[in-house]
Amino acid sequence: MKKVLLINNQNRPETESVAQEMAGKLAKYNLEVIRRHAFSPPVQIEDADLAIVLGGDGTILRTARYYAVMGIPLLGINMGRIGFLSKLELSEVDEYLEPLIKGQYSFSERLMLDCQVLKHGEVVFQSYCLNEVAFRSTSPLMVGFDLEIDGQLTANYRGDGMIVSTPTGSTGYSLSCGGPITDPDIEVLLITPIAPHASYKRPMVLDASKRVAIKYLSGVDAAVCVDGQVQTALEIDQVIKVSPAPFKLKMIKLKPSLFFYQIEARIRRSED
Amino acid sequence: MKKVLLINNQNRPETESVAQEMAGKLAKYNLEVIRRHAFSPPVQIEDADLAIVLGGDGTILRTARYYAVMGIPLLGINMGRIGFLSKLELSEVDEYLEPLIKGQYSFSERLMLDCQVLKHGEVVFQSYCLNEVAFRSTSPLMVGFDLEIDGQLTANYRGDGMIVSTPTGSTGYSLSCGGPITDPDIEVLLITPIAPHASYKRPMVLDASKRVAIKYLSGVDAAVCVDGQVQTALEIDQVIKVSPAPFKLKMIKLKPSLFFYQIEARIRRSED
Amino acid sequence: MKKVLLINNQNRPETESVAQEMAGKLAKYNLEVIRRHAFSPPVQIEDADLAIVLGGDGTILRTARYYAVMGIPLLGINMGRIGFLSKLELSEVDEYLEPLIKGQYSFSERLMLDCQVLKHGEVVFQSYCLNEVAFRSTSPLMVGFDLEIDGQLTANYRGDGMIVSTPTGSTGYSLSCGGPITDPDIEVLLITPIAPHASYKRPMVLDASKRVAIKYLSGVDAAVCVDGQVQTALEIDQVIKVSPAPFKLKMIKLKPSLFFYQIEARIRRSED
Amino acid sequence: MKKVLLINNQNRPETESVAQEMAGKLAKYNLEVIRRHAFSPPVQIEDADLAIVLGGDGTILRTARYYAVMGIPLLGINMGRIGFLSKLELSEVDEYLEPLIKGQYSFSERLMLDCQVLKHGEVVFQSYCLNEVAFRSTSPLMVGFDLEIDGQLTANYRGDGMIVSTPTGSTGYSLSCGGPITDPDIEVLLITPIAPHASYKRPMVLDASKRVAIKYLSGVDAAVCVDGQVQTALEIDQVIKVSPAPFKLKMIKLKPSLFFYQIEARIRRSED
Repeated sequence: MKKVLLINNQNRPETESVAQEMAGKLAKYNLEVIRRHAFSPPVQIEDADLAIVLGGDGTILRTARYYAVMGIPLLGINMGRIGFLSKLELSEVDEYLEPLIKGQYSFSERLMLDCQVLKHGEVVFQSYCLNEVAFRSTSPLMVGFDLEIDGQLTANYRGDGMIVSTPTGSTGYSLSCGGPITDPDIEVLLITPIAPHASYKRPMVLDASKRVAIKYLSGVDAAVCVDGQVQTALEIDQVIKVSPAPFKLKMIKLKPSLFFYQIEARIRRSED
Repeated sequence: MKKVLLINNQNRPETESVAQEMAGKLAKYNLEVIRRHAFSPPVQIEDADLAIVLGGDGTILRTARYYAVMGIPLLGINMGRIGFLSKLELSEVDEYLEPLIKGQYSFSERLMLDCQVLKHGEVVFQSYCLNEVAFRSTSPLMVGFDLEIDGQLTANYRGDGMIVSTPTGSTGYSLSCGGPITDPDIEVLLITPIAPHASYKRPMVLDASKRVAIKYLSGVDAAVCVDGQVQTALEIDQVIKVSPAPFKLKMIKLKPSLFFYQIEARIRRSED
Repeated sequence: MKKVLLINNQNRPETESVAQEMAGKLAKYNLEVIRRHAFSPPVQIEDADLAIVLGGDGTILRTARYYAVMGIPLLGINMGRIGFLSKLELSEVDEYLEPLIKGQYSFSERLMLDCQVLKHGEVVFQSYCLNEVAFRSTSPLMVGFDLEIDGQLTANYRGDGMIVSTPTGSTGYSLSCGGPITDPDIEVLLITPIAPHASYKRPMVLDASKRVAIKYLSGVDAAVCVDGQVQTALEIDQVIKVSPAPFKLKMIKLKPSLFFYQIEARIRRSED
Repeated sequence: MKKVLLINNQNRPETESVAQEMAGKLAKYNLEVIRRHAFSPPVQIEDADLAIVLGGDGTILRTARYYAVMGIPLLGINMGRIGFLSKLELSEVDEYLEPLIKGQYSFSERLMLDCQVLKHGEVVFQSYCLNEVAFRSTSPLMVGFDLEIDGQLTANYRGDGMIVSTPTGSTGYSLSCGGPITDPDIEVLLITPIAPHASYKRPMVLDASKRVAIKYLSGVDAAVCVDGQVQTALEIDQVIKVSPAPFKLKMIKLKPSLFFYQIEARIRRSED
């Protein structure tokens, strides 16, 4: 291990002081440390061995969208409230720093999505996605839309919108709309309608290789929002295409992961 | 019975021709017929004995907000697709016209709401409401808000928003968000959260005399929408107050009403 | 106030010692104290001014079914884990004992139900009910049944069964099956299907004056269970009739009740 | 193709006459036809090329449990009401018989489960399973149980029970309890609690390689039921272990399968 990307919200003094301290520790191991502000646009830095993210889930989501495409593994250190995505608490850093630098870890490979918005067949918006693509009415009125799976019209919906979630995103917005808690290590898509007008509409689980498209048919205003962070307004007849990203997020695991064991406590903590 | 308000969407030829025909029939009974376009603002006409509405639920909702305050009973004749609110199908008009004019009917008295938006304690928006007051994020992000019941802070929420529904509105937006189907003749409020972040948040049923307030605390954009028809944007710290309207909607019943018998078929029909 | 019924589970040493201590305190106010074991059958004692129940919700439910019919007001003092039904914690007794004896309290009048099972029109089982009447398959297979409201066939169901709940019972079994949290002071019935085969079946809220009947049509084994405490096996074609009991439960309120304020914390505590 | 197993409910005249006719057609292709009554125990007949099942989903479930272990592919021809599991309607048989016999088909390989009940570590019940393993209270009262995933205690539950469903079973009992509709071609388990006492308990989706165990801790009576057809009573402390069966069900596909396209219509039809 030679080069480490160290990412934190440099405007928040508490993460900034931790980041400076950690940069010092990493330097003692003769590692090149490249510090980045969480909100700065990504730099091309494919040869980094690791991205350490100090912060909450929001910071990790952004880093994943920026750097997973370059193949850089990510380790989240929780300094936020929730921490579904972080693998270490801040208090555990000293214990796990040496194993980390010696490469004594495994990966949890997480499905990411490629979200494209098409207008007359041309891509007018693109974003990678770790949690979910949410198509949502942005007026207080319903939208109407078609769902296509593998090019086949599957169902027509009216309601507040539709979420296409990864397993990683299953504990987020999809859960609020009745979607199932999903093992983050499996490769499925969750299709979760938001307040569907028809009461028999249900969340669906698809193989991740399925190509999903949502066609916005009617409504006053609507938008697509990726990971709760990147959004674009939609026009009628635009199509949102969701497919697996051509890369995975490599999340570093320094200790055995017990997703389902921790999940209820984490969910309840996150809801307080 | 002397004076009848006849309301239809005069831009739609199919309701317009039916309305003209009905105006003729009513005139034969020596009734004064006042025709109004469904989207025209209400006229002060307290001495009308009856408002006949030709149209779908949207037209009936608007008429109720306009004329129930004047104490005018309403009869909806279904020319739309759904017809939760209409009491006669168009094909039944000839059979029931004479009983109607002879006053051979009873009333279903329906709870209506008074929705006010307050800014620094001043009312900046007001609307009556037959179905529901929906407080909703109009960005694709969550809003945060407090719910007060009878002046007492009850719970804090994060999510897409909150619905305060009458029993009449229970088969509408509230149902899409998991609210119960509710007997329209009882005086309760349904408090139905929209995609709440915390999975233990549930729909609630309150006595209609309870004063409900929603305080908008955080978010990017939000609005209040009444009956899916009237809306206003909200600013942070504005408060939505919902209380019973000082009048009821008198819906004319010409035949025994079997709300729960018809309800499943109606819901399934409305969802096709 | 002259005569007090003091009820506890006399087999549990911790409630027994508290009961003896309380009996002593009550005697100092020159009250006649009649002690009863929680599981003993009720005695005819219409002239008691008050029933004090030391225990959890189970003990209060049983006492309500036994003594509400005699018009005796009830005060639950929480010695259990949950305490939806108790109005005082044990630690509050000393503060509120004098106001209690002086009659400085109000009542929360709670709807109770009369549950009857009919075979060929004859009543073969009867119980009053404070929380809910649950009709449930007691094999692992579905049952089929009809729901009648006011003598009118309303819907046919297949599934695990059906709950008819009071508002008081809304935080119990009905909540587990998706029913709404309901203000205990209103007079409604909650009709909550248990695992219905048809995904569009929903909880319903009815005026409490509605007469509800469930007709058991098909299945291997089924039973009716009242308040999770009294049960009887059912045969095919037997009918469960639920109507309002001819009396209310008078729950003593010594301090302002904030049902919805306490409800989330109570629910979460009860679920741990 | 040489040998065909032809299975139907020989007590039902309508399937019996169709079966006889079909046996005649198959004989014309010089196929050996072995007829079996749907409820007869399986015969050892590994060299059959195909099992044709005339009947509803119940008959197909039973046949899958009997013959998938022998590696015999299965074709269901719908003569029942629902037909989630059949791939041909009776009216399509003539069109597809020749392609079938010529081997012009593909397979949908379906996950099956191996359900074992252990008492003091000894297997006291075993069944394969195509739809779901349901652990259910068979009194009207709650049961308490632990869920283990891969030998790790994951959560404790109280409620009516728990379903472990395959994707094939996702449109059955699991759907009635809020589980997601799941692509039958993916290898996941659905863990769906039945009427859980704690309102934050949610359906979960796991990789099918996960070993799931349910330990029955408290309750009056409980049973395990496999595919709604095979059941056994449980004693306290017995453990239900669910793991993938060491074989798949090979369902014959004669035409492109559009699972999600047909799913809503099928669900609605099945619910009438």
